[in-house]
Parts: sequence; structure tokens; C-alpha cells
Amino acid sequence: MDSFDVIVLGAGPAGEVIAGRLAEAGERVAIVESQLVGGECSFWACMPSKALLRPAELLAEARRIPGATQAITGTIDAQAVLDRRDEIIHDLDDSGMLPWLEEKSIALYRSRGALDGERRLVLESGETLEAAKAVVVATGSRASLPPIPGLAESDPWTNREVTTAKEVPRGLVMIGGGVVGTEMAHAWTTLGSHVTLVEGERHILPQEEVFACEIVTDALTEIGVDIRTGRKLAEVRGRTGEAGGVTAVLDDGSEVQCDRIVAALGRTPNTDAIGLETVGLEAGGLLEVDDQCRVRGADGWLYAIGDVIGHALLTHMGKYQGRIAADAILGKDVHLHPIADGTPPPRVVFSDPQVAAVGYTLRDAQAKGLNVRAVDVATSGNAGGSFFGNDAPGQTQFVIDEDRRVIVGATFVGAEVAEFLHAATIAVVAEVPLERLWHAVPSFPTRSELWLKLLEKYGL
Amino acid sequence: MDSFDVIVLGAGPAGEVIAGRLAEAGERVAIVESQLVGGECSFWACMPSKALLRPAELLAEARRIPGATQAITGTIDAQAVLDRRDEIIHDLDDSGMLPWLEEKSIALYRSRGALDGERRLVLESGETLEAAKAVVVATGSRASLPPIPGLAESDPWTNREVTTAKEVPRGLVMIGGGVVGTEMAHAWTTLGSHVTLVEGERHILPQEEVFACEIVTDALTEIGVDIRTGRKLAEVRGRTGEAGGVTAVLDDGSEVQCDRIVAALGRTPNTDAIGLETVGLEAGGLLEVDDQCRVRGADGWLYAIGDVIGHALLTHMGKYQGRIAADAILGKDVHLHPIADGTPPPRVVFSDPQVAAVGYTLRDAQAKGLNVRAVDVATSGNAGGSFFGNDAPGQTQFVIDEDRRVIVGATFVGAEVAEFLHAATIAVVAEVPLERLWHAVPSFPTRSELWLKLLEKYGL
Repeated sequence: MDSFDVIVLGAGPAGEVIAGRLAEAGERVAIVESQLVGGECSFWACMPSKALLRPAELLAEARRIPGATQAITGTIDAQAVLDRRDEIIHDLDDSGMLPWLEEKSIALYRSRGALDGERRLVLESGETLEAAKAVVVATGSRASLPPIPGLAESDPWTNREVTTAKEVPRGLVMIGGGVVGTEMAHAWTTLGSHVTLVEGERHILPQEEVFACEIVTDALTEIGVDIRTGRKLAEVRGRTGEAGGVTAVLDDGSEVQCDRIVAALGRTPNTDAIGLETVGLEAGGLLEVDDQCRVRGADGWLYAIGDVIGHALLTHMGKYQGRIAADAILGKDVHLHPIADGTPPPRVVFSDPQVAAVGYTLRDAQAKGLNVRAVDVATSGNAGGSFFGNDAPGQTQFVIDEDRRVIVGATFVGAEVAEFLHAATIAVVAEVPLERLWHAVPSFPTRSELWLKLLEKYGL
Repeated sequence: MDSFDVIVLGAGPAGEVIAGRLAEAGERVAIVESQLVGGECSFWACMPSKALLRPAELLAEARRIPGATQAITGTIDAQAVLDRRDEIIHDLDDSGMLPWLEEKSIALYRSRGALDGERRLVLESGETLEAAKAVVVATGSRASLPPIPGLAESDPWTNREVTTAKEVPRGLVMIGGGVVGTEMAHAWTTLGSHVTLVEGERHILPQEEVFACEIVTDALTEIGVDIRTGRKLAEVRGRTGEAGGVTAVLDDGSEVQCDRIVAALGRTPNTDAIGLETVGLEAGGLLEVDDQCRVRGADGWLYAIGDVIGHALLTHMGKYQGRIAADAILGKDVHLHPIADGTPPPRVVFSDPQVAAVGYTLRDAQAKGLNVRAVDVATSGNAGGSFFGNDAPGQTQFVIDEDRRVIVGATFVGAEVAEFLHAATIAVVAEVPLERLWHAVPSFPTRSELWLKLLEKYGL
């Protein structure tokens, strides 16, 4: 029996953050991971996807700029993009993380693990671990595969394979127009694939403002993505690699030929095989936690962070929960902030144009009963925009709570707007009154002058 | 005699903003401008300089990205850059601004004008104007030309000519390593000039953090700029266009041959010929104002905004003062905010890497007697940085007031950090406590995660 202060189940970003923060504070920490230290995000999601997207995004912008475009007489080098992607994911080798664990004296168990009663874990590798203070569930999620006839048999890809493919696929049918589907449709199209994107809702990116969905839809269509919205996958015929390839049959009877189906249809929490039932909790679902990430139903020793609590399936929110939970375990009076964790968090879709948003969309704010008004401007409709591609589309909208005179939502759409977001995140989370924001002067000539235009338009 | 509610002297950005804001509120407004509506910034400073800088900056970044760099087999097209610059400055034609004035019913007088007693102006074109409520001085500044032997005779350029040159100059000696000198050294070097940059202080950009100056110095040196710091121009021999060209003699006796000297040595306020003496004020200096931009020494009817008050020679600050002064004239209880206007304002140097800063540098905060501590990180030392050029240098520093636990200064250095600044501007101006900033979660994987790393390093 190995004993620790805290045992973390899962070494994705959330697990790493909490393990690191606790170890730095002097706690004896173990982390249990059967796959790669770094998790889904580092190897099969955020990191490889951005590596695939960035070169084309940059070239597209350079092509829009007179003087720069003349220098681009060649084409994107897909193999170099894939090679750089492999560098960024360390060829799916996590040994680069081990010195970090060692430096912090975090014990790594490379095994599956499951709870076996309060504060105890049994590992597939044979060890039994005991936690003096806490066990943290940070096992993340996996791609869901819906029971569509023929889908599983067709040998579909999920986010894992579509972000790490060693060659540019010829033809893909992406099922699901959320972030994964949208980003991967964009990336592979710019690298040479023919992509069909199928989304059941009326718009791709259905959680975002409709104007954002429309701008991205137009941009994807323009580069050649075949977008089918309001459509579902009904059936799949054939199997990748076999003669005749794969046929996706949609619910209107239309058929799309491709090499591979990609299921990008949501996530299932990895809570089905971690022994929750041994401590009286239900397996397979989301874990409900309090504002210090303590699992409800356990007696204060069990914490959960990241995708398994389902607040927001985003790496940065899992890491945030990790920091809060670490401090809670250390006895600090720090809690998830009700705006940071309780309203729609900051999020970026790295398509081109990008969508960067924080807080409520207009319709969500209205559905919440908030007294809100939206104002919007063209993202590049200011002096700073003159130096960006003239024909790059973009719109920015703030949703303003008229009672409290604070921003409760912001959506930026445009070329390279990802870094615009943090200003809005600060304004939303810190509830900075509009009257004070009015004195935060954006620099000329940056595109951030859109802040000025939005506040003027609102009436300041 | 033409009568108005408010007469604005000078149609640069500050003058335009105040005229527009007052006209929108129903005031009868006149604006007096002898040169171009849009002013120095639009035609001979901010706008053309950024137009010259952006294409090379973008290509440099694309060249650092595997997969994208292979597409860049050609070189920057300098003529296309100059043509786009000319488009952005409308070939020095301001007629595009006239519909805006007309729409707002702002009367434009194309003439020099000067005060002739309280609320009265006489124009060179013959008219006399009378203001019922206020006169606003927004006449800006011009490049200073120090009395260095031979300098004036050499036919030097100032910011006006160096930003609007119709051909790429062969050899330039820039006197002054402030923003103009640094940006123009960068721009023209990337377009093919040989540039020597002479700065009297120990570093170029001497107002900024030393690490920022050093990073930019290294980057400029690497592209071929010959930087001479701690040196002054002692004498100039020869004249541009004449046989033998121009020789700049520095104070250590060294000589630099060039085609043209560029004086980038500071600004002189345009207050010497606007009739200030007719209302009992001194001509030629800066105008002192209260926190609603009312000129001290006048009886509440005279306002001044922009470079003539000398608070910060920045377009966005002149515009800010214009908004405040407009509201003051309209009787609103709005004042220049002591942080926004009273501490070093947001500012960006559009070199590559860029320098974006707001508030105090560490040494300025210490000189002010603040109890501060600085923390710093590599700008791209986070997951988001993986997708930017690996060998692009960059550092970011926050200066934190330990007593109040707020950020009082921030300096970002790196590729394309201009849009990082507004988040810091909001945090500084709104005095958001560190404990609240801790809950403003930067999105993964954006480079804005440097916020997280800085706060962690500070001890949160």
C-alpha cells in the first residue's frame, strides 16, 4: 500500500495543474494515468488541431495584404505542417513531461486505476494507493459514438485520429459542426482534403451567436467545405480501406462518398470504470460538485475537475477548476467564481475567421431573463483594421446588462481575434462598469478600438 | 461674422472627435483647418507608418512557421507596399472626410485661424468666427528641428516625408530612437534601405522597460539597422541630391554617409501662431488644462486637447481628451480619469517584435514611491506560443502595486502583441484586484495564458 496526501486520477491538463500546485505546496502527490501524461488536449485535441490550422491561417492573411501577397508564390507544404504538428505533440511520446513530475516529486503510476472505497484506489498494475487527504477525479472524456447503423463498422475517426492523421485524407465526412468538426473541416480543407460537414442544427457552431455561425459558414464554404446543416447521419455503408469506400447516408436520403467518417458529436465522461460505485456514487455520468470542486455525495475527500463535472469541456476551465480545488485541499478560502464557472466561459474556435466569445450570447442572456441590449460593429471597421486583409469578414458584438451596466457577453469574429478575448473576459468576470471601461482607452491604431466604437454605439 | 456654439481649431483626430461628438449632440460646430482634415496621424504618422510595417511583419512571422514558410518563395513587393500606403493615406487627399463633416453639419473652414480675443477667431481667409460656448484648441504638434550645424541646410526629412516617401530611400540616418525612429528604421530596412539609427540615450525607446529596448535593438540589428546609442548628431555636411550626398557627423567624431537625414527628435506644439496672446496666454508652449480640458488662465470658454496639452502625444489620448472635453462642454459631469490621463497611457511600438505597454515601467513606479514588484514571463512561453514563430523573441512584465494588489504597469514584447494590450489597459485603469483577475481565465491555447503564468509567478 502506497500512501500519499492526494491522489489524482488522470494526467490531462486539469490533473497536471492540480498535482503540480499541490506538490509545490509540499503535499505528497501521486498521479495515475494509463495513457499519456498531458492528456487528450496535448496530444489529440487542442494542440494538434491548432498546429494544423495556424500555417494556412497565416498564409491566408498574408495573401490579403498587398506587398506581402506577392512574396507567396508557392503553396502550403502539407507535409511540413504535419511534421510540425508531430513536433508539437512530441510524436505521441510523453517522456518530455517526466522531468516536470520528477522535479515536483509527483509519483506517476502508469496504469488504469479505480476507487476501492473511501480514499483508496486499486490499480490494474497491482498497486493499492491510499490518500490521506483527497482523491481527485480528472479522468476527462472521450468522443461519443452514436448508435447509427453502420457507423462503428465503417471504422470511423474521432478527434484522436483526425488531429493526428499521418497523411492528408482525400475525402472526409465530419458528423457534427461543433468546434472539432468546424476546426478540422477548415484544417484539412486547407491541406487538400475534400470535406463534407454535417450538422443537425440549423447552423454549425450552434452554441454561438448566429452571426458568428454565418460568417464561419460562408468562409468554410468559400474554401470548398460542403456544409449540410439541419441534416443528420442516418446510416453508413462500407468501410474505410475496402473497395467502394464509405457512403454516408443523410436523413434526407442524400448520399456522400468519402474515405472516412469522422464522429465529432460530443463527449462521454470517463466515469464508467473508476469505481465510483464503491463509494456509493453512480458510474458513467457527470459528477456534481460544490464551488470548491468537492463531489456531492462523498464526505469531503473526493474532488472532481475538468470534463467529468461537465461545466465546460474546455482545457482552460479544467485547469481553473484544478487551481481552485488545489487551494481548497490546502485549506484556502478560494471558490469557483459564479461568473467564471457559472456563466458560459471564454472559448475560441480557431477557424479562419476565428470566433472568440465569453459569457452569454444575446439569446442566452434573454432566456436567463436579463435585461440586455446588444451592440455590434465590424471587427476591422476601425483604423487598425486598415492593415488587416480588407476582404476578411468580421463582426464583434457585446451583450450589455442594462440594469447593472456591465458587459455580460462578447463575441469577436475575424482574422486573428483569439487574443482579443482576454480583455472581454476581464471586463465580464470583474464586472467592470461601462462608465469605467470608457476610460480604458484602446491604443491607436489597433483593432481594439472596436471597444471604443461599441461603447460609443451603446451611448457613452 | 459667422456664429457657432463651438469652434474647433485643428482637424486632426482629437479635433475631429470633439467636433463630431458635439455635432451629434446638436451643437452648431465649426472646424478650422489649414491643412488636411484627418491631421498628422492620418496622413503623415500613425497610418502610413503602420501601412509600411505590416506586410514585412506578417511575412516575417509566416517565414517562421513550418508549412507556411515553404509557400514564400518570393520577396516583399516594395512598390505594392507603397501603393497600399498611398491608398491608406488617400494620396494625401482629404476629400473622403468631407461627407462625414457634411452629414454632421460641421462647418469646415480651410484656413489658418487665430484667436482674436475671447470666443473669437480671425481666419487668414478673411472670416471672423464667434463661439457662443467654447473654442477648442486642437492644433497638434510638428516635428522639432534642433539647431544642429548643417542639419536644416541638408534638407532633412521629418516624420512627414519619411512616412510618405514615394521611393525606397537608399541610405537614411535617423536622428532619434523613439517611436518614429524605431518604426521607420524597421519599415525602410525591410523595404530595402540602409538605415543608421542614432539615439542620445543608452537605449532606443528610452521611455520603455530596458528589456523591451534590448529585444527591439537586437531585432533591428539582426535585419541590418546600424544602431548608435549614447551618440548625438554633432554636424551635418552636404545636402540631399547634391554630389557627395550627406555626411552625418556624430559627437564621437564618427561619420556616416547617407542620402538623407531624418529628424525624429521630438515635437513642438502648434501654439505659436494661434493668437493665444490676445486672451492673455503665452504663445508657443504647452497649454495647461484642468480635468475637463479647460485651459487654465482662460475663463471657462477655452479648451485644449491633444498634443498641445502635452499629457501624451498619442492619437488615442487626444481622442479621449476630445470625448471628455465634448461632454464637459455639454455640461456632463465627466472628467479625465486620473489613471487614464495621469499615468503613462497605453502605447504600442509597431516594430517587429512589437512593444505594447500601459502604465508605469518598473523604474517609473519606483521613482513614484510605489511599493511595487515586477514579474515576467516569456511572451510565447505557453501552449499558444507553440503556434507562433519559435525563434521570435518576446517577454512580458507586469508591475504590481503590492499595497493595493493591482497591476500598475504592463509591457508586452513579441510578435503581434498590439492587441494583447487592451486587457492590461482595462486591468490597470479599472484597478481590478489581482484576486479577481485570478478568475478571469485565459482561453487555451491562446498566448493570453501569459496572464495566468504571471499571476502564478506573483504568488496566486
